[in-house]
Amino acid sequence: MRPSTKTRLSESLRAIVGSGVEAIDTPALVVDLDAVMRNLGRMAEFAKKHEMRWRPHAKMHKSSALAKLQMQAGAVGVCVQKTAEAEAMVAGGVNNVYITNEVVAPGKLARVAALAHLVAAENGQLAIAVDSIEGVTRLAQAMNEARPHAPAPAVIDVFVELDVGQGRCGIPPGRQAVGLVHEIRRHPALRFAGLQAYHGKAQHLRSPQARRDAIAAAVQDTKFTRSLIEKEGVPVDLVTGAGTGSMVCEAASGLYGELQAGSFMFMDADYAANERDPAQPHFEHALFVKSQVISSGLQHAVCDAGHKSHAIDSGLPRVHSFSGEPTLDYFNGGDEHGILRPAAGAGVAVPRIDDVVWLIPGHCDPTVNLHDFLVGVTGGLEQGEVSRIIRVDARGALT
Amino acid sequence: MRPSTKTRLSESLRAIVGSGVEAIDTPALVVDLDAVMRNLGRMAEFAKKHEMRWRPHAKMHKSSALAKLQMQAGAVGVCVQKTAEAEAMVAGGVNNVYITNEVVAPGKLARVAALAHLVAAENGQLAIAVDSIEGVTRLAQAMNEARPHAPAPAVIDVFVELDVGQGRCGIPPGRQAVGLVHEIRRHPALRFAGLQAYHGKAQHLRSPQARRDAIAAAVQDTKFTRSLIEKEGVPVDLVTGAGTGSMVCEAASGLYGELQAGSFMFMDADYAANERDPAQPHFEHALFVKSQVISSGLQHAVCDAGHKSHAIDSGLPRVHSFSGEPTLDYFNGGDEHGILRPAAGAGVAVPRIDDVVWLIPGHCDPTVNLHDFLVGVTGGLEQGEVSRIIRVDARGALT
Repeated sequence: MRPSTKTRLSESLRAIVGSGVEAIDTPALVVDLDAVMRNLGRMAEFAKKHEMRWRPHAKMHKSSALAKLQMQAGAVGVCVQKTAEAEAMVAGGVNNVYITNEVVAPGKLARVAALAHLVAAENGQLAIAVDSIEGVTRLAQAMNEARPHAPAPAVIDVFVELDVGQGRCGIPPGRQAVGLVHEIRRHPALRFAGLQAYHGKAQHLRSPQARRDAIAAAVQDTKFTRSLIEKEGVPVDLVTGAGTGSMVCEAASGLYGELQAGSFMFMDADYAANERDPAQPHFEHALFVKSQVISSGLQHAVCDAGHKSHAIDSGLPRVHSFSGEPTLDYFNGGDEHGILRPAAGAGVAVPRIDDVVWLIPGHCDPTVNLHDFLVGVTGGLEQGEVSRIIRVDARGALT
Repeated sequence: MRPSTKTRLSESLRAIVGSGVEAIDTPALVVDLDAVMRNLGRMAEFAKKHEMRWRPHAKMHKSSALAKLQMQAGAVGVCVQKTAEAEAMVAGGVNNVYITNEVVAPGKLARVAALAHLVAAENGQLAIAVDSIEGVTRLAQAMNEARPHAPAPAVIDVFVELDVGQGRCGIPPGRQAVGLVHEIRRHPALRFAGLQAYHGKAQHLRSPQARRDAIAAAVQDTKFTRSLIEKEGVPVDLVTGAGTGSMVCEAASGLYGELQAGSFMFMDADYAANERDPAQPHFEHALFVKSQVISSGLQHAVCDAGHKSHAIDSGLPRVHSFSGEPTLDYFNGGDEHGILRPAAGAGVAVPRIDDVVWLIPGHCDPTVNLHDFLVGVTGGLEQGEVSRIIRVDARGALT
């Protein structure tokens, strides 16, 4: 007498492959797969032109299926922020994963070490960032403890993270890195793989010049640190970093060898608000929340998508306009609702019950993390059809 | 060679019943079950004193297990906002559910009707809100179409939603309600159950007087609308509404018969910032994100909980202090990190790697929606132990 698991599953799916976009139940997170493929092609071309590796950040899409799509397009692997995200990627068949973050809890490091041995047995590679001696020694201990249980001995790649302006994790540029590098090199299960110099705060500086200035400072600090390490006779094989906002600057630096940008594939309202650097490939919006009007009054209408359908840490979503002209403004309606009003001067009426709006989320990463599935559409949002349901298999992978 | 589903499950669980709080992996959403039971007791006592029904909003906790706990404490059932939430509640054994929101899509109404018939067969009751003639006629059609497949004929309770100041869904108070009521009464499968008069915007007005003024206006509008309906010879059995912020006002009104407040059970930083009405029971913080420091520098430390661990639509989390004195301030570190600095005048050091912080989320509802499980603790956050893992079975139930 109870709705079965299947009921909940069909609810979660919300769409059937082969049906038209009009049949997608709302709210749903919809991906324009044509735009995704164009964005991936532009990134691959950009990286090739600059002779750089690209390792997109999977914290954004949280999907092993999309990670594999990126690797088919030329990515060397993916980045993640969390041990549990790495586990989800590996479980999904991705065996080149870099945890661009510090892991210090022994329980988590045991999982990291198990994963490192697992991917090594499949000719894959795990990497991780560190910013403390304690972090290095615990990682080495975990790698050694995992070895007797592992199918094959493994070496984990270790990047020293520099704080190049983000003010978050990472050691300050300079001498401190040398001690960390020596500590890494003391342990046979660890390989010093290079420096991570990601400047998160530079990504959304609105003017290209401000982003160039921020990355120029990061480059200077990182080069200085690299020179100190190399003076000790230790090569620095790779500097890795960059996001969608600043990637043209890192690419032009001659220092970075790997781009971690991830948001370019979906884009969002916050990145779209950046003034575009002429050197930047044109990345299209590919991520939308499909929503429907459930209530309509004289002054406003209410749609069925609120904070539980899209993250608002970078602002409320924008209403997508197919004509390019403004139509509706979206206002905060709480967790489950959005308030819609005609945009100033748009000359459109208040939407009616059943009307569909396509929302462009403020920030792609935490928006994707709210959904179990992405509904992949080809042929456009107006006439297209559902061609693929993509599981967000690292959704909620927090630890 | 792949990590099994069990690996992911154990990651999601993060805690084992019987272990101490120190063993809970981070970040984790932890519920102080002792505080929960005290909060439920205070709500039950308050409702009894005012001779009111209480039907807490399950959009907050999204857990059928907690819904059943609330009903054991005296709640008549629960509220939800979404069809999919209602399905999750019913699947979890809760058969008295009120969808306090408009549902207009025929596909969803078919699910609503199926659910109405399902709970009726178990002596339960489904209810729903409407604010349009179109919504009523579609609901009636769905109920009729579901009937031949249903184990027993059912009648769904229908509340007419008034917009009493929220500016979201609902019709304006006044004559429009009469037409809607007549339309509801035309359909044998629908029962006009009363009026919903929920004032969302009143919940976080900081001063008790401002909240009293807002609810006084809502009461006046609702009484006027009720009198228009009763003049037609139609009884208005129930007025339902109220949230944790304003509930003392609705309770004192003599108009409302049912309280929908939900957040009182967990509380959050936003509700704690309200100046407390003397008539309000003292509800304790019961919801925390346990987080651990993963990086530590001279000026700040970084913990492992960011926007993907807690919603920030109502502001960043506060760091819980066991002494009551301020210790640390939490700053935005993005999706996966929090920045911690000693609070002004606190005289504490920058936290070190491994240090644990307990965060009080800004807003409980969308925070719970980010997690698959709540870790239930008894005996307090310092010395207690994990006594129950609670599945958030309506997490992500968006449609």
